[in-house]
Parts: sequence; structure tokens; C-alpha cells
Amino acid sequence: MAHLLIVGGSDAGISAALRARELAPSADVTVLVADHFPNYSVCGLPFFLSGEVSDWHTLAHRTLGQIESEGITVLLDHRAEQVDPVGKMVAAVARGGRCRSLSYDRLVIATGAVPNAPAFSARRLPGVFCLRSMRDAFVLHEYLGRFEPRSAVIVGSGYIGLEMADALSRAGLSVTVVVRSSVLRTVDPSLSDIVRDELSRNQVKVVDAGSVTGIEKDDSGGLSVRMGAQASVHGDLVLLATGIRPETALGETAGASLGVGGAIHVNRGMGTNVPSIYAAGDCAETWHRLLGRYTYLPLGTTAHKQGRVAGENAAGGHAEFAGSLGTQVVKIFELVVARTGLLHSEASEAGFDPFTVDLESPDHKAYYPGATSLRMRLTADRRTHAVLGAQLLGHYRAEVAKRADVVATAISGHMTVDDLLSLDLSYTPPLSSPWDPVQMCAHEWLQVLGGSGSPNMKS
Amino acid sequence: MAHLLIVGGSDAGISAALRARELAPSADVTVLVADHFPNYSVCGLPFFLSGEVSDWHTLAHRTLGQIESEGITVLLDHRAEQVDPVGKMVAAVARGGRCRSLSYDRLVIATGAVPNAPAFSARRLPGVFCLRSMRDAFVLHEYLGRFEPRSAVIVGSGYIGLEMADALSRAGLSVTVVVRSSVLRTVDPSLSDIVRDELSRNQVKVVDAGSVTGIEKDDSGGLSVRMGAQASVHGDLVLLATGIRPETALGETAGASLGVGGAIHVNRGMGTNVPSIYAAGDCAETWHRLLGRYTYLPLGTTAHKQGRVAGENAAGGHAEFAGSLGTQVVKIFELVVARTGLLHSEASEAGFDPFTVDLESPDHKAYYPGATSLRMRLTADRRTHAVLGAQLLGHYRAEVAKRADVVATAISGHMTVDDLLSLDLSYTPPLSSPWDPVQMCAHEWLQVLGGSGSPNMKS
Repeated sequence: MAHLLIVGGSDAGISAALRARELAPSADVTVLVADHFPNYSVCGLPFFLSGEVSDWHTLAHRTLGQIESEGITVLLDHRAEQVDPVGKMVAAVARGGRCRSLSYDRLVIATGAVPNAPAFSARRLPGVFCLRSMRDAFVLHEYLGRFEPRSAVIVGSGYIGLEMADALSRAGLSVTVVVRSSVLRTVDPSLSDIVRDELSRNQVKVVDAGSVTGIEKDDSGGLSVRMGAQASVHGDLVLLATGIRPETALGETAGASLGVGGAIHVNRGMGTNVPSIYAAGDCAETWHRLLGRYTYLPLGTTAHKQGRVAGENAAGGHAEFAGSLGTQVVKIFELVVARTGLLHSEASEAGFDPFTVDLESPDHKAYYPGATSLRMRLTADRRTHAVLGAQLLGHYRAEVAKRADVVATAISGHMTVDDLLSLDLSYTPPLSSPWDPVQMCAHEWLQVLGGSGSPNMKS
Repeated sequence: MAHLLIVGGSDAGISAALRARELAPSADVTVLVADHFPNYSVCGLPFFLSGEVSDWHTLAHRTLGQIESEGITVLLDHRAEQVDPVGKMVAAVARGGRCRSLSYDRLVIATGAVPNAPAFSARRLPGVFCLRSMRDAFVLHEYLGRFEPRSAVIVGSGYIGLEMADALSRAGLSVTVVVRSSVLRTVDPSLSDIVRDELSRNQVKVVDAGSVTGIEKDDSGGLSVRMGAQASVHGDLVLLATGIRPETALGETAGASLGVGGAIHVNRGMGTNVPSIYAAGDCAETWHRLLGRYTYLPLGTTAHKQGRVAGENAAGGHAEFAGSLGTQVVKIFELVVARTGLLHSEASEAGFDPFTVDLESPDHKAYYPGATSLRMRLTADRRTHAVLGAQLLGHYRAEVAKRADVVATAISGHMTVDDLLSLDLSYTPPLSSPWDPVQMCAHEWLQVLGGSGSPNMKS
């Protein structure tokens, strides 16, 4: 009976375990979970901290009991420290310091990612937080309840930074976001400027700082975030949301090679360079479907899919990860911003000959009540017309995310802009137009590329 | 200078005119419009009658001025009566009975569809209406305002019947829908039963009748809809919503052959069998992308696309209509029902070996407020796994329509169920799950087909 050991109890690890059990019901599948919280939706943490989710238990994708009922052994509070790839053993430290040795036939490393350490030392000051794990969330939640801070400074304006700006505002705090280069760099300025406006509209202050140089206690008992010699902002708490890096320490003890972005190098089957060892999720590289090469693109959706592939192969299968397009979406107050594929600049760097257009249109027929403005940027190759990427922004009721998914599906189907225009998409006046905004944007792309500016797709 | 004549001022006709002008700016493009309302969104009429759209003028996709500013000649109140395909002339009757002869080099017939005549004679009774044209809407609107009817009987439970049940309920009437076979036959009973519940929940009475045998004035001054010898329902007004048929009379005078469903037979370029004559929209056949043959599937989205192709070819181009998948969506009270591709039964008839599963899941992570139940039925070929169709039903805020569009895009990309599972779709807890419901359903399909019932995609 094959013994499958999986290190990591989040998206990739649990997906791997479930898939392995599904395909090899007789396999002995054990998951080591470093904390007490297997299979939690860490993407939900901002909504717990905002108060929108009142009971953190509901954040579990599955309960421990549900996982165990699939025949999976879950060892909580077990931190894997070392892999012996020759003896096929993992050394782990259990709660209380007890050391254990666990053997494996196949090992899946799904150790995730950890917050980037800031360039200054501040992490350990009281009132300075980061948000990655359930524990991080509990600590911050307790601080919010106990000290009732009135203001917060968030360093970083990526997804977590902006979701937390929303969350802490909802929780009643006055929020300042410190931006290093541009708000939400995952989209182009014409869209991220609208996100900035949405923050302002919701009383979130946005401060542009070349970089943060330090955080210190200030006279009022709060914290001061310094940006160079002159400027600083004050807050009763500081959240560091400056990105994540792959957690590869365990993989390195096994001799796993690192690749793009310092993540564990894998093949399309999620195998590492070490025999019988797989890696999946935020600790591993990501095959990019459009680029045709590995990238580092840590996302929950990808972790689930990579975990499933790793689990299948660890159970003796022959699955391949189809690849990511970097499809992602974030809700910030009333706005939703989504993207898939490449930005214009990324497409250029990758050797495409990209051409990009912008379109603003109502999300549905303007005569039907509740129409809101939808913005889309479409990037495609000038020569082949192959769709390369899209960015969409609109009201969170405006089906922005699934419109991005239509483009993601089109990219996966190797479609051209002309193909987008020919798609048979659904229409009823309360929800779209006879030409969906995605198609209006495709039309605009063809028109502008062809030198004709007259958009007659208002229909 | 080529003279393009287009008969019909709705979706297909105006699309053809715009596309022709775009490609051949020097062409002389004339559109004959039978009434006074070119380029109106007839799909919006129920929302005008419900009161949701207060000003009918806003239903215009474009104003007459906007169309004319593209260099298109619009002749209002011109009813085309006869085509002489040898002399390339169209005889039309203008308002007041004046006859005109108009020559053409290329002719596009976009005469649309007309309501099916009921098997009984009732159409001309006061208080009996149908809804197809702007005029129909004005007549009904005036009746509602002048006579303040308190109850309505709607004969037919397709899209128009159900949208009007919603609309007249909103307008304050007590509504009964008379159903011939099944409510919303465009989806399978497991979904249409939910639509029936939604009607009941909104105090719409649903009456099953083998068939309606007559409508007559009753003693109370209202109308009585008779269903056989015994049963009848009463209403202050009756709306006949028993489907439409292609309006082909003009095409027939030209010698155009009719095809599926009595619609004008066309080729992929929207050409008829008569030289220099094209047909597009609800009067013409529809190429079905999956079936690989012609059908009759009159939809606004299709009319726009076919009109565009006809206009391009009439202007000397070589466009092909890519085909329809029958993608459609309707909003009924709080529900949205969408479908694309084939139902199981249709797939069987077409020679596929379909396998269909049902899935119910929250539209987004259940822990985030506002999650609602989404239902999906996925049909794919047992042997090839090719996606053949999907039906979705859910709350109208639940991105139901664009999820159907993801499947429509996948079908156009010749994807399998396995490919659906590998798509990189967007996720944030307020809007989806790490595996979008579309993918959960794909997973369910693979699981059930493979004989394993355990769904572990709850993530």
C-alpha cells in the first residue's frame, strides 16, 4: 500500500490529498498541517476582519471531520523540518516539541508562501501586523477588539492591502494606504486610477511613498510609518501587505531546485527534480499557458489545480497542470477589478506585438434601471489577432468577473479578437447588450487597429 | 456607386446598413422601415410595460439622427411589398398609400418575424393583445392606462410570456399564465419547475391547459379564455404570447426558397438562392455551430451578427456567419435562467451520446454574505467529453448569464469537460469559489460518468 505524505493543509495540500484518495482509495494518505486550521479559506480573512463574516469557523472549505471522513489522516500542529529524500523520511516537530519521523513513498510539498519581510525592522513592534495565516488574523482580530484602534496604516496596495483597506474601513477605522509605485499594479493606470478614486470616495487616504524606511512608536502611543527623512503617517496599527514569497525551506532540505521567483522548480506534472517529490501551490512555480514558460503566480485557484495534479500523480497518475493565465479578481468597496492574461507591457516583453484598446460602456442596456459603467482594456496581437489579455473594472453587481472569465476561456481556446466578436453570448436587457461589452471591446480593437474610429456597436 | 437596399429597420437591418457603410463609405445605403421606429430594442418592451422603463424613447439603440449621421438613408413608414429580382426593383407602399419603386444592386431582407396566429379566432377582440412591435406595445400601454385592468391572462410561457407575467405583476395586475406543455420549455423540467415556483412566489397563477380553444367576452365585461369544454380563466386583458414565425412574404415574392421552420434559406454568407439578395435576422435560417446545420433560432444577438455579415457581403465582402449556439437568458422576477448549446434530448436527437448532470452550489463562498443557490445542468458527450450544452438558473445578481457565456465560449473553442475543469477562472470569495460552479459541475460530470459519486470540489 502506497504511503503518500503531504506537507501543507491549505488549498494545494488538501486538494492533493483528496485527489489521491479519489484515485487510489487504498492509499495511505497523511497530511501534515503546521497549525490547527486545515483547509481554511485564507482569501476570506479580510471579510472576517471587516465583520462581514462573523464566525471564522465558516471560513473552512471543509471541516477536519469531512477531510478525515475521506480516509485522510490529518496531523495537526506538525511542522515538517527536514526531508531525507534517500531514506524517504520527513522529520517533523509536533506541538510541544516532540520530534517525529514519517516515511513516505511519494511526498507532496505544499508549504505555501510567507509574507515578504520588509526592508526595515518593524515586524515585532506591538501594533504591527501582517495577514497570511489564520493565526495572523486572530492576532489582528483580538487587537481590534481589545484596543479599539481608530486608525490604520496599510503598507502596500496589492490585493491584500486594498481588501484590508476596505475591511478596516468597514470595521470603523480611518485608513491610510501607503503606495510604493502604483495602486493595484496588476492593472494598467487607466484602471488603477479609478481604484484610487474609489478608495478616496470611501475616505481611504492614499499616500505615495518611494519606500517605507521604518516604523516606530510615536509620542501619542500609536505608530509612525516613516517614508524617508521628511514624511511620515500615523496610525494606531500598521498592516504590512508588501507581498509574499514562496516558502521553500523544506523543499530545499530535500534538494529541490528553485526556479522562477525563488519558487520550487516543477515540471508540468508538478514533479520536482527530486524523485518521488512533488510541489504544488504558492511554494511552487506556475506554468503560464500563454507565455509557455514558468512564472511565479501564487493564487488560490492555481493552488487547487496544482494540488489536484500533484495528488493524481503521487497516486500513480499522469496528469499535467494546464497552466495559469493569471486570471484574478478583487472586490474593493463597490468596485470589482478583474484581469486575465497579459498586460500590454508584459505581452511586449514576451515577444508579442500587442495592441490594446480601452472601452467604457454600460454593463447592460442603459434604459434598464441600474446600469453602471464597465471599463475594459483588451490586448491582442496585432499580427495574429490572438487575444492576449483583458482587464475589466466595474460595479460588483455588473458581472465583471465572469466577463473576464469569458476572455480567459477564449484565450485558452486560442481565439482571436475576431472569434470573440463571433461568440454567441447571452443577452437580456437587464444583464447585457446584444453585443456584450466584451464584444464591443473586441469590435473597438478591430476598428482602431484598422484605422477606423467609428464605433457602431452601440446595440 | 453601389446601391444597397435594406428592408427592415430592426436589429438585422440596421446592423447590415452600418456594416455596409463602414466597409463601403461611398455606397448608397437605404433602409426601408415599415413603421416609425428604426433600431428599437424590442427586447425592452416588457420593461416599458412594467413601468421599469418610463420613457419608451430610451429603448432606441440609436436615434434616427445617429443612423442618418452615418450616411444611411432611412425611409420610415415604407412597407416593401414586392421584389423584382430580374429588374432589381422593390415596390413599396409609403404612408398614405403612395407607391414607390426602389432599385438596388444588392438587397438585404430583414423583415423579422410575426406572432404566431392562434388556432382560434380572438386576435381582434378588444382587450386581446400580442407583443412584437413598438405599435403593439403602445396599444397595450394605452389600454393599461385607460382601462386600468386588474387582471391579465397570458397565453404562452416562453420568454415573452414570462417576462410579461413579471411586467404586468409589477404594473399591479393579477396575472394568470396559461401553459400549453411546460413552463419555459427552453430548459429541462428540473429547472423550469423552479421557474414555476418563482411565478407562484410572486402571486402569478399558472394554469396547465392542453390547449386554448377560444377567447370570448364574458358577462363581467372581461375576457374568458376557454380551454376545452370545461375550463376557463378570466382576465380583464389577454396577451397572446404563443411564439413567432418568420415573416417571409417579401422574400417569397423575390423567389427566395424557404428552409427550416419556414424561414428564408440562406448560406453561411447570408445569401439567399436569389442572386444579389441576402436575408438576415428573424426571417432567416440560423446556422447552428454545434449541430453543423441550419435551424430556426430567432434571437436579437443572432440578428445583429447575421445583419453584420449580410451587410459586409452586400458591400462586396466575404464574411461568414460563425453560427449560433442558441445562447439565451431571461430574467423572471429575481431569477435568471440561461442556456447555451443543446439540451440532453436535443443532443440525443442530433446523434451525440449525451450525458447530463445537475449541480446545486452557492454562487460564491457561502461564508460571504449574500450567497444564493445556483443550479446548473451540464450536457457533454459521453465518449469524446465534448461540451454540448449548459443550463443555469440562479438569482439575477449571481452572474448566471456570464457563466453560461463561459460555457458558450468553451463550446465554440471545441472544449471538453476536462478542459472546463482546467480553465483559469477568476475567484474572490464575494463572487465565486476557487473552483467556479461551472467547474464544480464539470467535476461532477466526470465523477458521475466515471462511476464515483463523491464530489470533493467543495472549495
